[in-house]
Amino acid sequence: MSSNHGARRQSLRGRMAASGVEALLVTDLINIRYLTGFTGSNAALLVHADEAHTVVCTDGRYLTQVAKQVPDLRAEIARSSGRRLIELAHETGVGRIGYESHVVTVDEHRAWLELSPALELVRTPGLVEKLRQVKDDGEVELLRSACAAADSALAELIARGGLSVGRTERQVARQLEFLMFEHGAEGIAFETIVAAGPNSAVPHHRPTEAVLASGDFVKIDFGAIVGGYHSDMTRTFALRSVAGWQLDLYDLVARAQAAGREALVPGTPVADVDAASRKVIEDAGYGELFLHGLGHGVGLQIHEAPGIGKAGTGTLLSGEAVTVEPGVYFSGRGGVRIEDTLVVRDDRPELLTLTTKDLTVV
Amino acid sequence: MSSNHGARRQSLRGRMAASGVEALLVTDLINIRYLTGFTGSNAALLVHADEAHTVVCTDGRYLTQVAKQVPDLRAEIARSSGRRLIELAHETGVGRIGYESHVVTVDEHRAWLELSPALELVRTPGLVEKLRQVKDDGEVELLRSACAAADSALAELIARGGLSVGRTERQVARQLEFLMFEHGAEGIAFETIVAAGPNSAVPHHRPTEAVLASGDFVKIDFGAIVGGYHSDMTRTFALRSVAGWQLDLYDLVARAQAAGREALVPGTPVADVDAASRKVIEDAGYGELFLHGLGHGVGLQIHEAPGIGKAGTGTLLSGEAVTVEPGVYFSGRGGVRIEDTLVVRDDRPELLTLTTKDLTVV
Repeated sequence: MSSNHGARRQSLRGRMAASGVEALLVTDLINIRYLTGFTGSNAALLVHADEAHTVVCTDGRYLTQVAKQVPDLRAEIARSSGRRLIELAHETGVGRIGYESHVVTVDEHRAWLELSPALELVRTPGLVEKLRQVKDDGEVELLRSACAAADSALAELIARGGLSVGRTERQVARQLEFLMFEHGAEGIAFETIVAAGPNSAVPHHRPTEAVLASGDFVKIDFGAIVGGYHSDMTRTFALRSVAGWQLDLYDLVARAQAAGREALVPGTPVADVDAASRKVIEDAGYGELFLHGLGHGVGLQIHEAPGIGKAGTGTLLSGEAVTVEPGVYFSGRGGVRIEDTLVVRDDRPELLTLTTKDLTVV
Repeated sequence: MSSNHGARRQSLRGRMAASGVEALLVTDLINIRYLTGFTGSNAALLVHADEAHTVVCTDGRYLTQVAKQVPDLRAEIARSSGRRLIELAHETGVGRIGYESHVVTVDEHRAWLELSPALELVRTPGLVEKLRQVKDDGEVELLRSACAAADSALAELIARGGLSVGRTERQVARQLEFLMFEHGAEGIAFETIVAAGPNSAVPHHRPTEAVLASGDFVKIDFGAIVGGYHSDMTRTFALRSVAGWQLDLYDLVARAQAAGREALVPGTPVADVDAASRKVIEDAGYGELFLHGLGHGVGLQIHEAPGIGKAGTGTLLSGEAVTVEPGVYFSGRGGVRIEDTLVVRDDRPELLTLTTKDLTVV
């Protein structure tokens, strides 16, 4: 992916120029990974208008790793990586330097001001995140692999009888996570949600020792990480039998989810995408039980831009990877959420999470 | 633990008074967990001098959870939790409010200033972290459980023949993590390091498809999470046989580690603790191959205050939980690190990681 990283830095320079800065100090570790491939836990990156003056900085623990992962950039070794690069920018003759004011703390910013009073620090929040919103082919390939690992793990969980009466939420979650690793995940995307019976009505329930019972809804929200990229999928199952209210509720959420997916068209305001799905639920009289936004961008982070909710701003772009995940929750009784990860495309969205959304009774 | 949370907030008020603020806006999620028990991913906490005006804020996803986890405080529901509590502080008549300037971003701080220009925002970095440094009995109990989960998992890994020639680093790491869950872990404390042969010389190696071979050092650095608390332990094994240079290297690091543990006496400058261990390695002529600090505090985070390194400041306190983890790395050949988690006590440190440190040939 090394060539991609250079291309991403080059795109970034266009945005830097538009912001009127000669260099950008990147201190967000995810952004550094995106721009260089470096995955250590301490780093800063000085993206100079000139690639030859672009420098990555990390500490001694990562001496070998930075050489391996970032062969195409000069590496500095220092414990306070951001401060070291502020000094270096000053020494290199940079006048105006942008920084990630949405990430940099008040105290760190103060330290930089004291270190190099002559340097003009310019707030440039979100420059790299903006780039990251639209995925390149290599990124979509990794998202596809992450979604495939999750799909395969869920299929195997069910095939092995892992989703059955008598097991605990926690056992199911652990087995599902284990199976994701078996299917190529390098990590889990977030704490797996397995919520049975009344717990399925809690949007972000943590798995407990609660035992799966006949007639329960079981809501499973989970994801895998592959190459740093996250998948995100929710499916809700019925255990052994399904009651009339469950069929109605499931059908409602499924229709809302389909409406949300259909609204994924480049140029559509994200608030309209949320509204398209929400309207189905509101029309059924359950608007107040859809307790959260419709979805979010997904990539190197499980939650990234764009947020797709009532208060979301901006319009969809071709190449964005997003989730669509409406839910309706009957407190004390049960809830349904159905979620896919998709890529917005000019023609129709590309579905990455391929597990069926037909109501499955296991 | 609910009563502990109230006691912690009460201790914090003493520090707030000393800093001359009437209220403190806590926005670090770990600090919020420490002070309230809340574990959601969006929250802010306004600790008022008066407990009756102390408020936690989170968004709609956590409506049920916040009521369950924080029954003793009033809860506000808002998406921008920090901003909502800034407004609330102003409405409540607070004049001077402290904030976590080491956590709050430049942009968030600007938003607060615009929202309530009359409020005086006072930088008070690290107030809660300072409290967290000394663990109470409930916290030590959780650390003990986390360390026990790791000890048991490692013992079972070896008993089952999991550490053997022909397996890959990644297989060993995955099995060890799975066994930690089996032994009660709710999560893994950080990405497990399994580093075989030459890879053992890379301090923070990520497990690969490299195959364990006879005569290898295998360095395993891993931990479990129980009740939010992290364990941290490193052991280095020899596979099937052990060469003379390996015996010498292991013995050296073991002596350095013992010297570090013995230096864990309340009142000792942390830099002296580092030096006590480092001297053993320097005297053997390998000072430059000990590439990192001696250790770090551990608790709700895997790395927290105090840092125990050359440049560390301050002195040890009774009740601090810390790691002692010297290492010597022969690049291209192999390395040894030995690490324990311990609690500093008035008499002698309490060892929490109980796996033997005798060189074990498996």
